Amino acid sequence: MSTYSTPTAAILVIGNEILSGRTRDSNTGTAARKLAAQGIILREVRVVPDEEAAIIEAVCALRTRVSYLFTTGGIGPTHDDITAASIAKAMGVPLEEHPGALAILEAHYGDPTALTPARRKMTLIPKGGRLIGNALTGAPGFAVDNVFVLAGVPAIMEAMLDAALEDLPKGQPVLCVSVTTDKPESMIAQGLTEAQAAHSDVDIGSYPHFDPQTRRSDGVEIVIKGQDAKAIEAARITVKAALKQI
Amino acid sequence: MSTYSTPTAAILVIGNEILSGRTRDSNTGTAARKLAAQGIILREVRVVPDEEAAIIEAVCALRTRVSYLFTTGGIGPTHDDITAASIAKAMGVPLEEHPGALAILEAHYGDPTALTPARRKMTLIPKGGRLIGNALTGAPGFAVDNVFVLAGVPAIMEAMLDAALEDLPKGQPVLCVSVTTDKPESMIAQGLTEAQAAHSDVDIGSYPHFDPQTRRSDGVEIVIKGQDAKAIEAARITVKAALKQI
Repeated sequence: MSTYSTPTAAILVIGNEILSGRTRDSNTGTAARKLAAQGIILREVRVVPDEEAAIIEAVCALRTRVSYLFTTGGIGPTHDDITAASIAKAMGVPLEEHPGALAILEAHYGDPTALTPARRKMTLIPKGGRLIGNALTGAPGFAVDNVFVLAGVPAIMEAMLDAALEDLPKGQPVLCVSVTTDKPESMIAQGLTEAQAAHSDVDIGSYPHFDPQTRRSDGVEIVIKGQDAKAIEAARITVKAALKQI
Repeated sequence: MSTYSTPTAAILVIGNEILSGRTRDSNTGTAARKLAAQGIILREVRVVPDEEAAIIEAVCALRTRVSYLFTTGGIGPTHDDITAASIAKAMGVPLEEHPGALAILEAHYGDPTALTPARRKMTLIPKGGRLIGNALTGAPGFAVDNVFVLAGVPAIMEAMLDAALEDLPKGQPVLCVSVTTDKPESMIAQGLTEAQAAHSDVDIGSYPHFDPQTRRSDGVEIVIKGQDAKAIEAARITVKAALKQI
């Protein structure tokens, strides 16, 4: 995958509730599909707790190796929302009140006296940050350099991600086709190995189905991915021919 | 969380299909709940592609900072199943045919001549590895030192994880209680900050609900977690009192 001439991304999910098993993360799946549709290759996902040291370490590690890092979670008004402050430390910039964020929140609440310290906390953004629009709630997401900081609530994350992606250049989409077979993986492995060797310009993945009811293998989906439609079609023909010979 | 005297874990999901958005990862949620039930604190999750360098880096980083690392995916018979070989390299040990794994596969297929090279590949395990039983399929998972290597197919992952957890000591379970309120997060933030400061022996998390239909905030679930039931109850009373005052 590393040879693709497309932008890359990582996702950092910040949230004790995911690690404790209390909440299932759905943001990663949503973001993965949206990134793929935009031709951005998702290289890594990490989930870390709401702890400053863990967030800083992950941000520093991930943002240097991908084109864009997207974080989700921890940008609300409560004490456990430490993402903005942690990102500021990771980037080595101060946390500042953003005039645009203040204006948005003032408009959202309609009354400047409603801006309690907790609400005002949501206007604090790392210096140099650009706001990420969000029609659903008052609190904006933001971007600093190549780090895009999004909410954890799925509907709001999605709205912010859409807004962020609008401003990013599209990569060349990764195309893929599937070939299915009812033969077990172990029977088709040799043929797939040879097909992959003959078609190094695509990625051939093998995903066995398993029926938990019958406790039996239930065929395989073979996924051929790449950026060149002709290369994918050539590989598909090879894979189909290999399956016929079994 | 880092002050808990309980074993810790990390999960490494190995799979292009998760990063491409083609497949939603359900293994992390399942494993997170099972680990929590056993009193093991999940500290981090990573998802990396089926690439040797990415797997080795993640294994080396994660296994040194937690009690147990669980990997999922990439242990089948096809060319893109490179987990066992990558783990061996990460641990600095050779990949060897495991007599126990060979015996299991021979029994599973019933006929030694059915052991094609692809199937035989599944008997290759890092030197020193212990097999992880699995009633569902022939191919076993395995453990090397503190790294537990499980299948990616959810039903099989779950069976292997259950088997692995049976042999591990139980930690002191993390207890939690929820308090719900229909007030928005920004109104309760100050009270929660004070409650967390007064009860440093628990973790107080604030999780806002958002109704995508009405596009409105829909109350908050406040989760109080810890290992001491009395400390949790004391914090719960403080939180309830703080909510009453708003």
